[in-house]
Amino acid sequence: MNAPLKNDLYLRALKREAVERTPVWVMRQAGRYLPEYKRVRAQAGNFMNLCSNPELACEVTLQPIDRFNLDAAILFSDILTIPDAMGLDLTFETGEGPRFGKPIKNRADVDALPIPDPNDSLKYVMDAVSTIRRELDGRVPLIGFSGSPWTLATYMVEAGGSKDFSKVKGLLFSDPATLHVLLEKNAQAVISYLNAQVEAGAQALMVFDTWGGVLSPTNYQEFSLAYMQQIVDGVTRHAEGRDVPVTLFTKNGGQWLDLMAKTGCDGLGVDWTINLADARLRAGDSVALQGNLDPSVLYGSPESIRVEVKKVLDSYGDAPGHVFNLGHGIHQYVNPEHLTVMVEAVRELSAR
Amino acid sequence: MNAPLKNDLYLRALKREAVERTPVWVMRQAGRYLPEYKRVRAQAGNFMNLCSNPELACEVTLQPIDRFNLDAAILFSDILTIPDAMGLDLTFETGEGPRFGKPIKNRADVDALPIPDPNDSLKYVMDAVSTIRRELDGRVPLIGFSGSPWTLATYMVEAGGSKDFSKVKGLLFSDPATLHVLLEKNAQAVISYLNAQVEAGAQALMVFDTWGGVLSPTNYQEFSLAYMQQIVDGVTRHAEGRDVPVTLFTKNGGQWLDLMAKTGCDGLGVDWTINLADARLRAGDSVALQGNLDPSVLYGSPESIRVEVKKVLDSYGDAPGHVFNLGHGIHQYVNPEHLTVMVEAVRELSAR
Repeated sequence: MNAPLKNDLYLRALKREAVERTPVWVMRQAGRYLPEYKRVRAQAGNFMNLCSNPELACEVTLQPIDRFNLDAAILFSDILTIPDAMGLDLTFETGEGPRFGKPIKNRADVDALPIPDPNDSLKYVMDAVSTIRRELDGRVPLIGFSGSPWTLATYMVEAGGSKDFSKVKGLLFSDPATLHVLLEKNAQAVISYLNAQVEAGAQALMVFDTWGGVLSPTNYQEFSLAYMQQIVDGVTRHAEGRDVPVTLFTKNGGQWLDLMAKTGCDGLGVDWTINLADARLRAGDSVALQGNLDPSVLYGSPESIRVEVKKVLDSYGDAPGHVFNLGHGIHQYVNPEHLTVMVEAVRELSAR
Repeated sequence: MNAPLKNDLYLRALKREAVERTPVWVMRQAGRYLPEYKRVRAQAGNFMNLCSNPELACEVTLQPIDRFNLDAAILFSDILTIPDAMGLDLTFETGEGPRFGKPIKNRADVDALPIPDPNDSLKYVMDAVSTIRRELDGRVPLIGFSGSPWTLATYMVEAGGSKDFSKVKGLLFSDPATLHVLLEKNAQAVISYLNAQVEAGAQALMVFDTWGGVLSPTNYQEFSLAYMQQIVDGVTRHAEGRDVPVTLFTKNGGQWLDLMAKTGCDGLGVDWTINLADARLRAGDSVALQGNLDPSVLYGSPESIRVEVKKVLDSYGDAPGHVFNLGHGIHQYVNPEHLTVMVEAVRELSAR
């Protein structure tokens, strides 16, 4: 039995309930900008060892909570655990990013893909979730997450990261039927993966659509949003006696917030290329908004960080439904003390 | 005396005059996807040798005109010629992109920057322009171009390309006054550079703001658009008895087309993340629109290329003021015959 939740600001803000102050967490808050993270990372040997060791994954998940007193923890893991469990042979080479030894090349590869049982080949993730929940001891809620079906497909077809997405877009334009089969499988895998995370103790869910923004509007709807809709419809939205809010985040998706809100999700992640007042106009009133400080603000002076935090809070205004965050993951070379400045500014300036 | 212009579809479309069919050209149409380009590039030894040799720059500029019968030629050059002429020591390492040996680090570096005389240290560009005009012999108009002041500044401060723009954004947030001095100098340099290109024979101008889209809306207006406004106001808009249209292109700037149109430019480049009907609604009726096929469509089959060309033409509709183009530069690994399919589809499907 997990401890009762002491700080539920994040969950309440996502349900657009009034809160005493704006909750704040940071994408990639457990990461390389923290010296204590780098120590554990070195101890683990390589990145996947760190993800697959529940005790170490728990340790790095809690580091930013301890240091910054943030309002939510997010499972430390990678978005590519699902394709790895499908047998695509994931490795991380230093400075090179992720690589798949067995990328998807054709319809036969797609047809052969298994949908992983999250309590079997992804059990290490569920063990991390339950370990983190236990160690959090009710301090703040734990967010579970996955990559979006489209974003997973880009890596699976490109065999890693990409600049111009030539292979996956070549597939999209020359053989869309095969891509749809792949996306359908990814969506099923994501749904069972996220539901297993909720069962293991995740109290909110987030879907990262890192690469939806490289598509045209119609292709975004057909190849990314349609499958996020399946996820919103398919995941557990209530557990342990309260709602499990779902947040969708498409980087460079500011133009499509209206379509994203219509999925019926609870929150939308917003990057910094749209101000939150405009984002609210586009998204309507059915969703909370998460964001949206430019991560590079943290390279500036403490004074300028406070100024920029205030601009974000002011652009959102006093209505309920704001979760403060960066508009993308925190950069590797940021001084952690600058994040302290940001978090304290949010707490102070948003107090009702 | 240059030959009279035989095909002025591009210039007329930018003035939103009725045209017999939609003119078409392609960003980076002279480039590595063409085997004839690679031969000249190898002959030149390195990339800057190719840019700085007017005969070779002319040869590669005309290659895509000869092969595809496009409706405009664009000067073959690099956006970093200006900072190179300012003394920042530009080199291109294979597979590494541009590097500056003497990047901008502080206010003293900015204060020491000269504004280059375009007919002195950039004379090789003007020689290329006049050579190309002569060799074009009036077939199609010649577009001159520059990077935007902000885009130039990103390379000058980062010492090359960047993923997260940590240095230039650090400067933006911690010492905006210094960045403004740099942008002011860049704007003055760009204006005199573009005016010299018009004097040498350029018949239209384009400003590439490759990295304006990484800014927040207010920072975009303050640090990029304000300086493009200076350019629109400062460049020669009439030469050789007809208008010299100016097109602005901010990649990922679809959300700001209204602000960009208000500069008084003639055309706006549009990437593929917004459809042209929406782009027209946002931009209003005072500008032509250039774009916006996803460059990755050219990785698809000839049939799918025709389908996607039709979608772009249909999304614009029958009103005057459309210049067909990709939404960004053509990719290196595209089959040139696929570009032939695209160009022929535009010609055939847009015939009035």
